[in-house]
Amino acid sequence: MADRREQILDGLKAFLRIPSISTLSEHGADVRRAAEFVRDALAEARLRHVDLIEGGGNPLVYGEWLEAPGRPTLLLYGHYDVQPPDPLEEWHSPPFEPTVRNDSLYARGASDDKGQTWILIQAVAGLLARDGRLPVNVRFLIEGEEEVGGKHIAAYVSTYPERLRADAAVICDTEMFAPELPTICTGLRGIVYGELFVTGARQDLHSGVYGGVAPNPIQAIAEILCALKDRDGRIHIPGFHEKIRPPSAKELEAWRRLPFDEAEYLEKEIGSRELVGEPGYSVFERLWARPTLEVHGIRGGFTGEGAKTVIPARAVAKVSLRLVADQSPEEASRQIAEAVREACPRGVVAEWRTIHSGAPSLIDPDNPFVQAAARAMEEVFGRPTVYIRSGGSIPIVGVFAERLGIPSVLMGFGLPDDQIHAPNEKFYLPNLYRGIEAVERFLSTL
Amino acid sequence: MADRREQILDGLKAFLRIPSISTLSEHGADVRRAAEFVRDALAEARLRHVDLIEGGGNPLVYGEWLEAPGRPTLLLYGHYDVQPPDPLEEWHSPPFEPTVRNDSLYARGASDDKGQTWILIQAVAGLLARDGRLPVNVRFLIEGEEEVGGKHIAAYVSTYPERLRADAAVICDTEMFAPELPTICTGLRGIVYGELFVTGARQDLHSGVYGGVAPNPIQAIAEILCALKDRDGRIHIPGFHEKIRPPSAKELEAWRRLPFDEAEYLEKEIGSRELVGEPGYSVFERLWARPTLEVHGIRGGFTGEGAKTVIPARAVAKVSLRLVADQSPEEASRQIAEAVREACPRGVVAEWRTIHSGAPSLIDPDNPFVQAAARAMEEVFGRPTVYIRSGGSIPIVGVFAERLGIPSVLMGFGLPDDQIHAPNEKFYLPNLYRGIEAVERFLSTL
Repeated sequence: MADRREQILDGLKAFLRIPSISTLSEHGADVRRAAEFVRDALAEARLRHVDLIEGGGNPLVYGEWLEAPGRPTLLLYGHYDVQPPDPLEEWHSPPFEPTVRNDSLYARGASDDKGQTWILIQAVAGLLARDGRLPVNVRFLIEGEEEVGGKHIAAYVSTYPERLRADAAVICDTEMFAPELPTICTGLRGIVYGELFVTGARQDLHSGVYGGVAPNPIQAIAEILCALKDRDGRIHIPGFHEKIRPPSAKELEAWRRLPFDEAEYLEKEIGSRELVGEPGYSVFERLWARPTLEVHGIRGGFTGEGAKTVIPARAVAKVSLRLVADQSPEEASRQIAEAVREACPRGVVAEWRTIHSGAPSLIDPDNPFVQAAARAMEEVFGRPTVYIRSGGSIPIVGVFAERLGIPSVLMGFGLPDDQIHAPNEKFYLPNLYRGIEAVERFLSTL
Repeated sequence: MADRREQILDGLKAFLRIPSISTLSEHGADVRRAAEFVRDALAEARLRHVDLIEGGGNPLVYGEWLEAPGRPTLLLYGHYDVQPPDPLEEWHSPPFEPTVRNDSLYARGASDDKGQTWILIQAVAGLLARDGRLPVNVRFLIEGEEEVGGKHIAAYVSTYPERLRADAAVICDTEMFAPELPTICTGLRGIVYGELFVTGARQDLHSGVYGGVAPNPIQAIAEILCALKDRDGRIHIPGFHEKIRPPSAKELEAWRRLPFDEAEYLEKEIGSRELVGEPGYSVFERLWARPTLEVHGIRGGFTGEGAKTVIPARAVAKVSLRLVADQSPEEASRQIAEAVREACPRGVVAEWRTIHSGAPSLIDPDNPFVQAAARAMEEVFGRPTVYIRSGGSIPIVGVFAERLGIPSVLMGFGLPDDQIHAPNEKFYLPNLYRGIEAVERFLSTL
């Protein structure tokens, strides 16, 4: 593959130059350009029936190669949309001008998920170029709404499961536990993302003239947030914890053996004063096996330069719940909506609206596809593969399980310090090439 | 004065067309234009020594007429700067295109304080035009930083008290208790306005990958706000309440006699579900004689369209305390800074920085200048003048008291529904003309 590296890198850079930010409607044209870019890459890799699947939302990109009768069929998934790059001023190089520094490629989407989607495409392209055929059947399904809830792909998979028949899905959208440590992710958290609307007075009021009798929607949001989650990080939403399945003793034991230095993690990855979270749970339990409630932003009032003495008429907070098996997003949505109503202070009206959600998922490490992937990674990296979970959410995994009845093999090649969703996102380039090699081996040795 | 009405209104409209928003640095040129506008109006009124006083910040506008030896000298104060107009989409006519509807003039600053400053200028201009002289001596001192803390005027008054020698100040920047009810304000709340900075991780983090162990600065702000003020509106800042001087029994009794319908007030002025605030205090006590803590906005995290799953690295809340006699702004600043430190949750660093502050003030209703103003207003409006307080802050009143040793007569001609600091600010035009007449009579009968 050494001879293809330059070409592979150039292709990825071109992919990363497209600011396909799915959450900002002004980037609609860029999102479409990214879909077309993926379509062209699949066509160039000589897949069959390459096409954009339209139908509400951003197009899905499909391509297949099904000429290995009697062999398993894999559904290869990735996403071409990215998170917004703000705060822009914290980037050392512009987010959509991919730049190599110290063996890493810096750009929004470098790791999440354009770089990893590129691994799947280039592995298949490489095998087809070399052999003219594949050792297994594959279907690509690359979406453009992963960062905004993936409604289109969920609807498509649910509506046309027969078009996507496969034995397992393969997803490159997670990270390795440590550099050089091949990793398969066996669990993901689910999510409920929504907005908390609070309305007080009819319009913004002067805090001198009306302060003391007028309700303050931002203060009300603060009160609701504090009612939903206490200072120790315990969530107080009635019924919310009932269906949580604790990790097995064996899994907890494996997590304890993972190479992990909490002080170093705090210093290198977080950089805060200390780690926080629910008392009585280890770091990995808090990250992988416990739900969270996080507030992502509050809009309302005056946030410009200087001082304005306003009591805002309304305010909106963006809040997410991360869920673990076997919590249900639908049930959690109802529970937080009810808890918000209960926690609403006097004088204001508070309402919860879910924007998107996805189920948590777990896969059995003994699954044969997982085992084959683990062996392929082991051969390329030269070390035993470890099994971890991820705190993030890939809702499509739940959809694949429910609608197609297939497990998802999560082969991740990102690194813990890739800064996904943050300024200076990067992808470690050796993992780009090793990832392609590992996927090639996985497909070849199934 | 009837013959001058059109000219007076045209002048005020021209004044209001200048978007002199002192808190937004991009409006610096507009602020200066407003200062020059006032300077030209004072010159046209035939005041002497009219000039801009420069020296850091926005210029003060000065003008004097001191040719009535043996007569009292009044310091006439107003401000030419205004609050930002946002949210813009809620204005029925553009904030800087003054528009007359139903006897009221709609524009940002119409009531606070360009319209009322215009009353002082036109009253003096009218007397000088009619008589060629004034019955008293006057000094105008009009500032351009009232909405942002008034540092320049405070420094100037403190540095050059001899240039401003006077027997009393007259300020038109308050409101009448009710339409047709002449009102003098005998007390103002003070203010401490500041920012609450909270820092968590080194940079924004993905809420899936790090949620459960990373501190969330917005949640921390929520916790601090809830620690500083409880659900009932009680402020919990150690020592904060110690020096509060309760209103006299006589004052409380007078407040009880004011024409006031709480249900109508809630419906017409606030428009929220109910009134809130400290239990055990009447509406007027909560507005005029009790301190408040209000949050005006939070910056940090993601507030755009759609969803972004970020744990922000930092967040800033704008917060004010309103103070009542005899609370000290310096002491309250120290107390809230300390309370913020105490309330700071684990994992984050919280810091309070005061942006500006001003002392509360009280004046004796039996003061002879107050009595003369009350009589003048009574003659023009045909009803006895009532004495109220205001929940707002005019910090210069404290500076005049401390540095010049003079009381301030607060003759207000705004109305309770003028929407100052809010969309659709207005000034009731009959009060513009009656205000000018009342000030003319006050100056003539001293």
